[in-house]
Amino acid sequence: MDKILRIDVGAQGGPKADVTPIGDYAGFAGRGLTSAIVAKEVPPLCHPLGEDNKLIIAPGLLSGSAAAMSGRISVGCKSPLTGGIKEANSGGQASQVLARLGYAAIVLEGKPSDDTIYKVCINKDGVKVEADNSLKMLGNYDTVEKLIQEFGDKIATISIGQAGEMKLAAASVAFSDMELRPTRHAGRGGVGAVMGAKQIKAIVLDDSGMSRREPADPEKFKAANKEFVAGLKKHPVSGEGMPAYGTNVLTNVINEAGGYPTNNFSIGQFEGASKISGEAQAELENARGGEGSATHGCHKGCVIRCSGTFYDKDGNYVTKQPEYETVWAHGGNCGIDDLDAIAALDRLDDDFGLDTIEMGATIGVAMEAGLAEFGDAQAAIKLVKEVGEGTALGRVLGSGAAVTGKVFSVERVPVVKGQSMPAYDPRAVQGIGVTYATTTMGADHTAGYAVATNILGVGGSVDPQKPEGQIELSRNLQIATTAIDCTGMCLFIAFPILDQPETFQALVDLISGFTGQEMTADGVTELGKAVLTCERDFNARAGMTPKDDRLPEYFKKEALAPHNITFNVKDEELDTVFNW
Amino acid sequence: MDKILRIDVGAQGGPKADVTPIGDYAGFAGRGLTSAIVAKEVPPLCHPLGEDNKLIIAPGLLSGSAAAMSGRISVGCKSPLTGGIKEANSGGQASQVLARLGYAAIVLEGKPSDDTIYKVCINKDGVKVEADNSLKMLGNYDTVEKLIQEFGDKIATISIGQAGEMKLAAASVAFSDMELRPTRHAGRGGVGAVMGAKQIKAIVLDDSGMSRREPADPEKFKAANKEFVAGLKKHPVSGEGMPAYGTNVLTNVINEAGGYPTNNFSIGQFEGASKISGEAQAELENARGGEGSATHGCHKGCVIRCSGTFYDKDGNYVTKQPEYETVWAHGGNCGIDDLDAIAALDRLDDDFGLDTIEMGATIGVAMEAGLAEFGDAQAAIKLVKEVGEGTALGRVLGSGAAVTGKVFSVERVPVVKGQSMPAYDPRAVQGIGVTYATTTMGADHTAGYAVATNILGVGGSVDPQKPEGQIELSRNLQIATTAIDCTGMCLFIAFPILDQPETFQALVDLISGFTGQEMTADGVTELGKAVLTCERDFNARAGMTPKDDRLPEYFKKEALAPHNITFNVKDEELDTVFNW
Repeated sequence: MDKILRIDVGAQGGPKADVTPIGDYAGFAGRGLTSAIVAKEVPPLCHPLGEDNKLIIAPGLLSGSAAAMSGRISVGCKSPLTGGIKEANSGGQASQVLARLGYAAIVLEGKPSDDTIYKVCINKDGVKVEADNSLKMLGNYDTVEKLIQEFGDKIATISIGQAGEMKLAAASVAFSDMELRPTRHAGRGGVGAVMGAKQIKAIVLDDSGMSRREPADPEKFKAANKEFVAGLKKHPVSGEGMPAYGTNVLTNVINEAGGYPTNNFSIGQFEGASKISGEAQAELENARGGEGSATHGCHKGCVIRCSGTFYDKDGNYVTKQPEYETVWAHGGNCGIDDLDAIAALDRLDDDFGLDTIEMGATIGVAMEAGLAEFGDAQAAIKLVKEVGEGTALGRVLGSGAAVTGKVFSVERVPVVKGQSMPAYDPRAVQGIGVTYATTTMGADHTAGYAVATNILGVGGSVDPQKPEGQIELSRNLQIATTAIDCTGMCLFIAFPILDQPETFQALVDLISGFTGQEMTADGVTELGKAVLTCERDFNARAGMTPKDDRLPEYFKKEALAPHNITFNVKDEELDTVFNW
Repeated sequence: MDKILRIDVGAQGGPKADVTPIGDYAGFAGRGLTSAIVAKEVPPLCHPLGEDNKLIIAPGLLSGSAAAMSGRISVGCKSPLTGGIKEANSGGQASQVLARLGYAAIVLEGKPSDDTIYKVCINKDGVKVEADNSLKMLGNYDTVEKLIQEFGDKIATISIGQAGEMKLAAASVAFSDMELRPTRHAGRGGVGAVMGAKQIKAIVLDDSGMSRREPADPEKFKAANKEFVAGLKKHPVSGEGMPAYGTNVLTNVINEAGGYPTNNFSIGQFEGASKISGEAQAELENARGGEGSATHGCHKGCVIRCSGTFYDKDGNYVTKQPEYETVWAHGGNCGIDDLDAIAALDRLDDDFGLDTIEMGATIGVAMEAGLAEFGDAQAAIKLVKEVGEGTALGRVLGSGAAVTGKVFSVERVPVVKGQSMPAYDPRAVQGIGVTYATTTMGADHTAGYAVATNILGVGGSVDPQKPEGQIELSRNLQIATTAIDCTGMCLFIAFPILDQPETFQALVDLISGFTGQEMTADGVTELGKAVLTCERDFNARAGMTPKDDRLPEYFKKEALAPHNITFNVKDEELDTVFNW
């Protein structure tokens, strides 16, 4: 990982690939690298779809090694959705493969002079960029199918669907999973629209002939990895709950806590929650003869295996097991309690290349605007299909909840910095509200998952309904998360490393063993702070102020049932999150 | 004008009218009053369509008196288009009538609890607010027709069309003219959407039984008014050009200067300019037996009379003589050189209640997105009709150019603070670029009309294509304009008062004579500065920063033909406009 592949799509005569040494960016990886390149090379006031924006795809520091859980990949750019810096994170196979091929990052830059679309093929022999208009306006599934026919099934793919090609701000970048299906997405912030603006439809990675990245200190690395895996396995969340039910184990928990945003964030509990819970989902999947949740990871090297496969009643593959956020977004948030409909929506999102959170929140806003009734699953499916068809209405919805709210004059639009809130109401889980408000990314639960401590009792205990302690909680989690996002590690390692000091130490040792340079707990903190500082600086140069670090006013005014509470962390306190 | 009418549309049992003394706002009028109330009473982070926003309608200081040209009215709120403070200014009869009725302002506040719409009737006996759902989704023309049937023809009306009812961000507030047609609009910034959010469809004003507002010093006032009128009549712009050809006299002038934005601001000259010029328009109107331009003002007391009436080829009334900005917006900016089509578009805009500048710029962006060909007048008409019909596409277009650009992924979107640029390319007329960038209002030519000095040679001479001198020019004009907007005076008095010291002195004496308090030139400047400071403070509290005081990047990068120049006033210089 000592080189960067730059593809100038605006070069005369067509896209030009250039492999350059990593140079000044040495030591950066994952989110640390994507944010560093955006901050240094992208003019903060440029148009996100214009020639000056760049799309950066970077494996983590440990990706491609034998370290467990190290297969996450970062996608960065100036976001078409928020106007600020963006890192969207995904699982799938690409991170490991790209790292083994030796690339610290792929950087797509410039602007094509016509409407040709391209595919990029990267293997041990080098890089090829080829025009391929036969891929135009294919969904991710058909795109990957064609790539398999051409390149065989030993590949990993990175692709966009119709939404990315249409440059819609809810468009995702899809990564193929272990079954070579495009089910893993860097969903948030419209990264797919930037890939679409560069007219790169797909990137095919083949690491045949390459080998695993080897640690500098094999003994230390091996021992640390063993301890690390043991820690993951013994923690109740990563070792039991998630493998058994997937992330959707959260539905009953969050609903019970009164923080499950229902009908466009109008109440905190959903009548139909038990019908779409992880427990119900597992039962359904098992009954349909699927392999269940417990056997499936999104990338090689995963030991948590929170994923699964969703089959229809006739046993036909529909989609991967929809994640908690997706089930919520298209489920409770739209008043829908039908797992088959939710899976169909997930499949549409994955195929068109759309962020499921943004789309669910957007459909919720559209329902509030009267475009459909809450609970009408078929209407929701029809609305998402409009996006793929590129109708005027579809383009509005594909532009996300904030734009949809503007077009349809809806007041209650649950966004921060233009990005939709995920599956936790910030009034019932005030710590996550602090993260939504202040993260550099726009409303994002993964940026500082205070739900862990507020609701799950992981990493201590902070009352979810009171303002006390939320700032410090969110601050610490944002710092730690940012550091983890540099390593390529799956965020779900946070549960054991927050609770088990020896597992945290194992992670630190894993990094030290791999790089051969001594990492410390303080070093992890400093890394997180440095990346956050760089991101906040970019956002400030893009015109953001503390006023952008706020929840919409209605969260402070409208009390949420059943606890009848408003978000009551003070603005002045929000402004102290990054005082360290 | 010592009282304020407040209508709380959210009161229990329906809207409640309350007439209160002007109190702390004594001495404020027009834009000074609307901005003072917004700044003091509207939370800067509130939703523009929510209960906390207020719509303020305020005549000017001299409105209702015998002072010539004093019939302009200010409409203020937090703008749904820019998110900042807004004052949109209009002619028509309402200002004089409302002032004679003794109201310094009407303030609409709160939020209705159902979807009933209301009309407000104000006369010498008081105020009545009545539900009238028979007006629902009528255009402004039909609305005014119904009001005339009910209240007779001695009224002045303030109304919204379908766009305002739909709460679209390009919606205007319409004011009836001397012929009781809804042709004069407070167009900019979506003020009509805020009136729509308050569900006040129309306000009917009847000043029967009221008399003219009398000056404190009648002799001084009368002498000053005489001198003032003489000054207007002797200046070549206000005394000759505008009465002869209307504002559209500018088409040939601006086109000749290479600053006529054509095909969505892609070039600075339009082939078809001569076909839609003021000269061609006057010839056409005269040939069709209209009364021509020279005889028509938009309100009683106007002595410039730049307005006219547009008839179709069969002599049927279509609309008022479209203004320069409208002719440009729907003409050159969309590549359309057909005055009949432009008049039809103007009529649709007026009827639906839409800002013609915003709509023309939006259609230009839609054309760039490929929704229609540049030059296709029938396609443009069809697009604007979609707005009135409230289709999904129509709602997008009615949300303005910035939202349309987002939905259709267009990069070249000529907006500042979300508001469309008017009819002067800031590359060829750099002074107006400084105003577009820095005014509190979002791109707005009227906020500091540097075109006067850059192109027309009024108020001195500053080379339009060089950065030198533009900051000072824009600063001084913004200060002066803001003060004029407080008086109720038509902005077109600026031409003579900039060139003729005795006419400026006459204006100052007119104010002194009316109020009985000595006004000075310095006092006018201080007034302008005070209002601008208050507006900038609101915008800062709403989250705006110097980054919002910028033109879109492409104006700095793409050279404009025929002069092949970019906008080259430096950012750091833009940040000095309000250093005084």
